[in-house]
Amino acid sequence: MSDRVREILSWYGSDNPGTLTNLARLLNHGHLAGTGKLVILPVDQGFEHGPARSFAMNPAGYDPRYHFQLAVDAGCSGYAAPLGFLEAGAREFAGEIPLILKLNNRDSLMDEKDPAQAVTGSVADAVRLGCAAIGYTIYPASAHRLEMYGQLRALAEEAKRVGLAVVVWSYPRGGQLSKEGETAMDVCAYAAQIAAQLGAHIVKVKLPSAHLEQKAAAAVYEKQCIPIATLAERVRHVVESTFAGRRLVIFSGGPASTDDAVLEEIRAIRDGGGFGSIIGRNSFQRKRADAIKLLHNIMDVYAGRAK
Amino acid sequence: MSDRVREILSWYGSDNPGTLTNLARLLNHGHLAGTGKLVILPVDQGFEHGPARSFAMNPAGYDPRYHFQLAVDAGCSGYAAPLGFLEAGAREFAGEIPLILKLNNRDSLMDEKDPAQAVTGSVADAVRLGCAAIGYTIYPASAHRLEMYGQLRALAEEAKRVGLAVVVWSYPRGGQLSKEGETAMDVCAYAAQIAAQLGAHIVKVKLPSAHLEQKAAAAVYEKQCIPIATLAERVRHVVESTFAGRRLVIFSGGPASTDDAVLEEIRAIRDGGGFGSIIGRNSFQRKRADAIKLLHNIMDVYAGRAK
Amino acid sequence: MSDRVREILSWYGSDNPGTLTNLARLLNHGHLAGTGKLVILPVDQGFEHGPARSFAMNPAGYDPRYHFQLAVDAGCSGYAAPLGFLEAGAREFAGEIPLILKLNNRDSLMDEKDPAQAVTGSVADAVRLGCAAIGYTIYPASAHRLEMYGQLRALAEEAKRVGLAVVVWSYPRGGQLSKEGETAMDVCAYAAQIAAQLGAHIVKVKLPSAHLEQKAAAAVYEKQCIPIATLAERVRHVVESTFAGRRLVIFSGGPASTDDAVLEEIRAIRDGGGFGSIIGRNSFQRKRADAIKLLHNIMDVYAGRAK
Amino acid sequence: MSDRVREILSWYGSDNPGTLTNLARLLNHGHLAGTGKLVILPVDQGFEHGPARSFAMNPAGYDPRYHFQLAVDAGCSGYAAPLGFLEAGAREFAGEIPLILKLNNRDSLMDEKDPAQAVTGSVADAVRLGCAAIGYTIYPASAHRLEMYGQLRALAEEAKRVGLAVVVWSYPRGGQLSKEGETAMDVCAYAAQIAAQLGAHIVKVKLPSAHLEQKAAAAVYEKQCIPIATLAERVRHVVESTFAGRRLVIFSGGPASTDDAVLEEIRAIRDGGGFGSIIGRNSFQRKRADAIKLLHNIMDVYAGRAK
Amino acid sequence: MSDRVREILSWYGSDNPGTLTNLARLLNHGHLAGTGKLVILPVDQGFEHGPARSFAMNPAGYDPRYHFQLAVDAGCSGYAAPLGFLEAGAREFAGEIPLILKLNNRDSLMDEKDPAQAVTGSVADAVRLGCAAIGYTIYPASAHRLEMYGQLRALAEEAKRVGLAVVVWSYPRGGQLSKEGETAMDVCAYAAQIAAQLGAHIVKVKLPSAHLEQKAAAAVYEKQCIPIATLAERVRHVVESTFAGRRLVIFSGGPASTDDAVLEEIRAIRDGGGFGSIIGRNSFQRKRADAIKLLHNIMDVYAGRAK
Repeated sequence: MSDRVREILSWYGSDNPGTLTNLARLLNHGHLAGTGKLVILPVDQGFEHGPARSFAMNPAGYDPRYHFQLAVDAGCSGYAAPLGFLEAGAREFAGEIPLILKLNNRDSLMDEKDPAQAVTGSVADAVRLGCAAIGYTIYPASAHRLEMYGQLRALAEEAKRVGLAVVVWSYPRGGQLSKEGETAMDVCAYAAQIAAQLGAHIVKVKLPSAHLEQKAAAAVYEKQCIPIATLAERVRHVVESTFAGRRLVIFSGGPASTDDAVLEEIRAIRDGGGFGSIIGRNSFQRKRADAIKLLHNIMDVYAGRAK
Repeated sequence: MSDRVREILSWYGSDNPGTLTNLARLLNHGHLAGTGKLVILPVDQGFEHGPARSFAMNPAGYDPRYHFQLAVDAGCSGYAAPLGFLEAGAREFAGEIPLILKLNNRDSLMDEKDPAQAVTGSVADAVRLGCAAIGYTIYPASAHRLEMYGQLRALAEEAKRVGLAVVVWSYPRGGQLSKEGETAMDVCAYAAQIAAQLGAHIVKVKLPSAHLEQKAAAAVYEKQCIPIATLAERVRHVVESTFAGRRLVIFSGGPASTDDAVLEEIRAIRDGGGFGSIIGRNSFQRKRADAIKLLHNIMDVYAGRAK
Repeated sequence: MSDRVREILSWYGSDNPGTLTNLARLLNHGHLAGTGKLVILPVDQGFEHGPARSFAMNPAGYDPRYHFQLAVDAGCSGYAAPLGFLEAGAREFAGEIPLILKLNNRDSLMDEKDPAQAVTGSVADAVRLGCAAIGYTIYPASAHRLEMYGQLRALAEEAKRVGLAVVVWSYPRGGQLSKEGETAMDVCAYAAQIAAQLGAHIVKVKLPSAHLEQKAAAAVYEKQCIPIATLAERVRHVVESTFAGRRLVIFSGGPASTDDAVLEEIRAIRDGGGFGSIIGRNSFQRKRADAIKLLHNIMDVYAGRAK
Repeated sequence: MSDRVREILSWYGSDNPGTLTNLARLLNHGHLAGTGKLVILPVDQGFEHGPARSFAMNPAGYDPRYHFQLAVDAGCSGYAAPLGFLEAGAREFAGEIPLILKLNNRDSLMDEKDPAQAVTGSVADAVRLGCAAIGYTIYPASAHRLEMYGQLRALAEEAKRVGLAVVVWSYPRGGQLSKEGETAMDVCAYAAQIAAQLGAHIVKVKLPSAHLEQKAAAAVYEKQCIPIATLAERVRHVVESTFAGRRLVIFSGGPASTDDAVLEEIRAIRDGGGFGSIIGRNSFQRKRADAIKLLHNIMDVYAGRAK
Repeated sequence: MSDRVREILSWYGSDNPGTLTNLARLLNHGHLAGTGKLVILPVDQGFEHGPARSFAMNPAGYDPRYHFQLAVDAGCSGYAAPLGFLEAGAREFAGEIPLILKLNNRDSLMDEKDPAQAVTGSVADAVRLGCAAIGYTIYPASAHRLEMYGQLRALAEEAKRVGLAVVVWSYPRGGQLSKEGETAMDVCAYAAQIAAQLGAHIVKVKLPSAHLEQKAAAAVYEKQCIPIATLAERVRHVVESTFAGRRLVIFSGGPASTDDAVLEEIRAIRDGGGFGSIIGRNSFQRKRADAIKLLHNIMDVYAGRAK
């Protein structure tokens, strides 16, 4: 085990050896094994946006096995998906890649000001499918957030008891938040803090803009001169906000974009001390060869093999 | 066991042998045994539409035993009904036909914009009645959908643990959906995807029209030139959307119609690679002889014995 | 055991011998023992309408023991009441009459458009009080109906497991239903169907009028020429709608009326093939001697001893 | 044991010896031991009205031990209070006075049209504190009443199983009730009936006025000439309405008043056949000596030692 | 063990030795050990106000270990924080300081008229992390208060069973309360009473102003001439309102302020008989040396080593 992984595991002193083992499985798998960085393939788009919007541009992706194989071949640290997608390949790919069962989901057949998600899997499901971790989305700022926090609390407690790791997607939405506010600097940092306070081992947030949403927060950013001009600075502030860098915080890539644009963001995450990325639409919506190439390039940046 | 059934069972690698056995019971029963196709008789109309609207045109159907016998004599793959109807014949017909206990239902004494259903049976009921599967309806697009997904999740987990199969009726309704949107191409495919992601073994959706309901989806259908002009093409797209054809997706027949109209739809389902049908009102609302004749004709199409 | 009772028990093939034993206790008790007919004394008026409106016209009825004795002396098939009333006499009258614990109730201190009931007793209460059955009211057409169906489902499952019978009062109310619609022909038949589908052994509905409430249903009644002109025909249609007469469906008598009016209704129930009556206010709101006389006359009609 | 207590216990034939023992503890304690009458000291005012409004006029009452001692010294039948107050003295006063743990409470920091209460203690708490009974308030007529009835049902079932007695405060409030209606004759009698039907061993209601609130009830009171002109008559009607006097029904004294006014009410309760009183603010808001004197005078009236 | 601590423990006669042991751990730790006074460091600001608003002015505080060390070095009686913050240091600091796991929290990404909190930890979490107590916030006056009381009840019962102490933050907010009313004399005293009645061992309230919010209460304060002119008098009244000083009631310091202003408040708490303080923002938002100096000065006042 690399010193870096050993160091990271030391941050989780309240977890049992089972959970540390599963965190280590994620940190020791694929091209980034041992570096302390993570690149995870998430495929919940079929549930979240519907099948055609998710897979028509690369129809091989309709088949759930495609994504297991993509994650394996690209050397990802892990693969995250809802119950159905994992059930459809977990036996065939048993032992080939650490799995993360996403325990809640929502569709986009209804547009709601204050969104919530349905629980779509259980900790027992994660165990029987051989997963390394559970995943759960919270929507800080939604009117349903308190209920979501409570639900995550119960699931995380159960997961930790059986030695699983807990990955939390923290996406502020709804309520009194402006659209711009969903990725505001103060809001993203706050979202990361909440996920960490709720006991997440791995926190996933969106890349923050330089916008400041809440007045009381903006006043502090100005008075304390917190540097947030560049993306790398903003990533650094998020990492700081996640227990001074003692929790694994990774970033989502957003909608499909050009390779260059993606890689520029990755460099900023690296420079800001971020722990990696979750790359969904920018991987499985590309042709397989292109996706693997981009993922390798991303991992090279994180691993310090490329600038 | 036929190679085709063996192949289908191989898609369900995360299920225990008990659930595979019950899937096999459905796939190996009746006229379509071994073909990988299913024709299921569902009789929840008494609950959903009331007794007179369901049975007055063929009063023998008031008697719950009539439907067991019809399913047996027509060589159906299984018979699905609510608790009361199954309790009223399960002993008399024990072992004669695979049963599916429909675990939720709603009546039509109240018209609601965002419909939900009541839980009307349990997994334990399904077990004591000797069922092969549970059935559950979700209404994607209803304001109650998240709660329904969560309820299905819990029931499906319990059913899988005791070796039952899970059949999900996925009917988008309510919310911001137009009436036409309930059977829109994009919406039907999305509904099938959701049911599969929720862990259904068998998915039941309505036959889609060529209408596209959601803007974001319509843009993709056009850009990617997804063929949806013919019913067979639309069925094929639904099958693709259900884990690239690795989940059994079957179609409902809708209100009573002429034999020819029904058979034309069946041919389209067959040509599109659909796995079969649920035929309710077009069977038990016909005279017994006519129903059996139509069901035989349908099965012959699916089995490749008729064009 | 009479052939008729044996036949009736044969309709409940999914129930355990314990439940059959308790159904047999109801069918083999009192003046109608062995006839396959039931007359049950229900006294939930104290809860539903308050003490004075229930008992002031015959003050002996304030005492819970009065009703046990009345049911025994009149030769009723069983006695149904809420927890408090049963607790107040169950030891004194142990073994003298089959008891039905009414598990939900509502008062009339508040008038609600969409009514519901409170759960006021448990299956465990029914067992410790030596009851033969539980009773439960549903309000099809109320906005709360789905929750009520789900609650009944859970209680009925538990009751059946411990060998109790399940009696369901099915009273359509609220929602979009007109006052006249509460006893409409189509609505009463639908209410009976719902109770039977929910697994009731004994269904209790109100006597239907010739009014048809729902358009879609009315069209079928007319097209299929379902005869509903006389009360006996309407009773026959309700019996047909309750699994073709294979579930015990009994009728409530409504507010206090003259003996002649009551007996005319009883004859119609008998002629229509109904299985009996629940007679509340027309028994305990009469003087004891008058009540016993009327109940005997009613039973004579059902038993075929009077016309 | 006195014949009267033995007789009272005989009314509770469905309860186990444990519950009878605890009822006997209440009936055999203090100055009224053996008389079949009860005077209970309740101190939930701190929770319900706040500390200053409750105790500032007699500051010794801020100390929870004061009320235990007062109840002991005054020879009360029992002492009722919320969790905190009982926990603060239960060890020190163990065995000195039967305790009633009030399991629900509300504060007056918010004024609500349809009030409810929070559950603030458990049956397990009552058992570990050595209590003889649990107490629970229902608000018949509140929009929350059905939920309260259901909650009481569950707590009462559990309490009876472990041999505790159940005391129900039945205070109609909210909904469509006028302020005057809260103590109307018909409403008070109905409230007592509901508590008894819910399985209460001891029912506590307010003293009724001669006002009649509900039209349907008023018509019956007039037609049946129920005498309600005097307070004694009204008490008698409440007693009749509580299972013809076969349940212990006691009355609350209301806000602090003069000794003479209180004693006049006590005489009416005695003359009407009431079983006693709950005296809160008229005891602990007086100076200790005055409170004990008044309580003794009250008990003398109930015991027949004074007129 | 000091006589004072022994005396304080004697007030908790209904608790098991486990809970007394944990109360003693808090009372016997740090600079105030044995004095019967408590100064607790709470750090839930990251969750409540976001990371930048909480820690940017003293960035060392982003690291959860900083606060453990601060509490240890300053000689605090205990350290309270949400799950994530405690998990991040509980192993490293095991045995160095009594911990209080704050079981509910809310963020400020949404502003609600009637606030509530999410449950973010469990009693089992508190046990596995080696905590001495659980913490829980109630919002008396919020429309959600009844639910919060009930939730606290359940958690407190579980905590007491496993030998933990229960600390309740009682902050009246929302509903019909004015902003000024949140710290009104009558409201603060009422809030302390409610927490004590709910079974709290340690009650935390805000320092009251001389404002009186509720009319009915104001009348009593005037009539009974309760002295509330000085802060010390107001503290004394809160202490009196918390079971006549037989429950540990401590006070929160509010937003960051000058040392002098803080110490003046501390002297008033001491003079009024308060049991100590919770000092959050006035400690970790100062530089470490300044914070330790202020905390020492505060403790010297409480210990009688400074005036």
